[in-house]
Amino acid sequence: MTTATPARLTAKGAATRARIVATAADLVLARGVGGTSLDDVRAGTLTSKSQLFHYFPGGKSELVLAIADLQMERVLRAQRPFLDTLDTWAAWDGWRDALVAYYGSQPHWGCPIGTLVSELVGTDPAAAAEVVGHMDRWRGLLRDGLGRMRESGLLRADADPGRLALAVFAAVQGGLLLTQAMRSIEPLTAALDAALTALRAAAPARHPAVLR
Amino acid sequence: MTTATPARLTAKGAATRARIVATAADLVLARGVGGTSLDDVRAGTLTSKSQLFHYFPGGKSELVLAIADLQMERVLRAQRPFLDTLDTWAAWDGWRDALVAYYGSQPHWGCPIGTLVSELVGTDPAAAAEVVGHMDRWRGLLRDGLGRMRESGLLRADADPGRLALAVFAAVQGGLLLTQAMRSIEPLTAALDAALTALRAAAPARHPAVLR
Repeated sequence: MTTATPARLTAKGAATRARIVATAADLVLARGVGGTSLDDVRAGTLTSKSQLFHYFPGGKSELVLAIADLQMERVLRAQRPFLDTLDTWAAWDGWRDALVAYYGSQPHWGCPIGTLVSELVGTDPAAAAEVVGHMDRWRGLLRDGLGRMRESGLLRADADPGRLALAVFAAVQGGLLLTQAMRSIEPLTAALDAALTALRAAAPARHPAVLR
Repeated sequence: MTTATPARLTAKGAATRARIVATAADLVLARGVGGTSLDDVRAGTLTSKSQLFHYFPGGKSELVLAIADLQMERVLRAQRPFLDTLDTWAAWDGWRDALVAYYGSQPHWGCPIGTLVSELVGTDPAAAAEVVGHMDRWRGLLRDGLGRMRESGLLRADADPGRLALAVFAAVQGGLLLTQAMRSIEPLTAALDAALTALRAAAPARHPAVLR
């Protein structure tokens, strides 16, 4: 299923569709997919049933995927420019700070991508798989940075960029789940700091990791 | 709200209630709270509407909290006996292996506690707060073990057991979220191994952590 704005829409139509997605994204963030009906979306966006169908002929699944696209774009933007390199310890520290600043401004929401996956896995497996694809791309950027660090000798030759990226990404997701549960940014900072400690432990003795 | 088996139930009644909770727990694990209606529970347990009301006069919230109690009991049991000490590196390694063995036998479910919290936060804040209480107790056991390790000199005097426990617990939750999303136990093992690496980095130089 494509989630891009349909080509047939006029500029005005595309703007309306984007407005619906943004409002629906806030509703889903607050109440989950299961707690947000299409009627809620219509009420929140002042659109009619037929308008909603016009913009999202695939129904709720299509709307949810458009929300995932929007949230992923926001989350990736918040991690830039660090996310595109991650090939020095300074870049990792900058990335950590950018994530904390972004989620610290909305500590009660958790990760919009992680919570979507967690909820969709049981109710809409096809949509869940699409959102897992977003996660994979995000995690892939972490892995690519770690691969470059291994090439340049900042990580030991026996370090496994894929496995380390998985651990760092789990720290992000788990830290955000607890940040949402505890309504504090502290779980995210504790999780990220421990993950970066584990990364630094994979630096070679002859080229030790710069401690912050 | 109390979630213990009501005292007024006969032994047979208590057994019936426990059977309903166990079946409903499986349904919620597979489809989430939002994806599981009381009608689904009735159909799955062959109980009538009035029977269900008899056992759970508080409705779905009461049933969900009984499910959380059951799942927490199972998850804690799977981590024993290690969870009660966690005051040596061998105990931490044993705990890690026990978690991996338990969740490795059901890699597509994620953490029944974490997913409940994530879903309930937006739809049933009172129930979410009760489940967060379970999380706090679980995390408290990790923190207590780390406190004992600091006392005995296995961790440095400046190590913060509360913050380290938060990081390890985030690794468990994030590892399990990704384990569910990716249908593989690898994210959990990668996350736990990185968390234990971070713990070992808090060992004193004069009393270094035993590597596995």
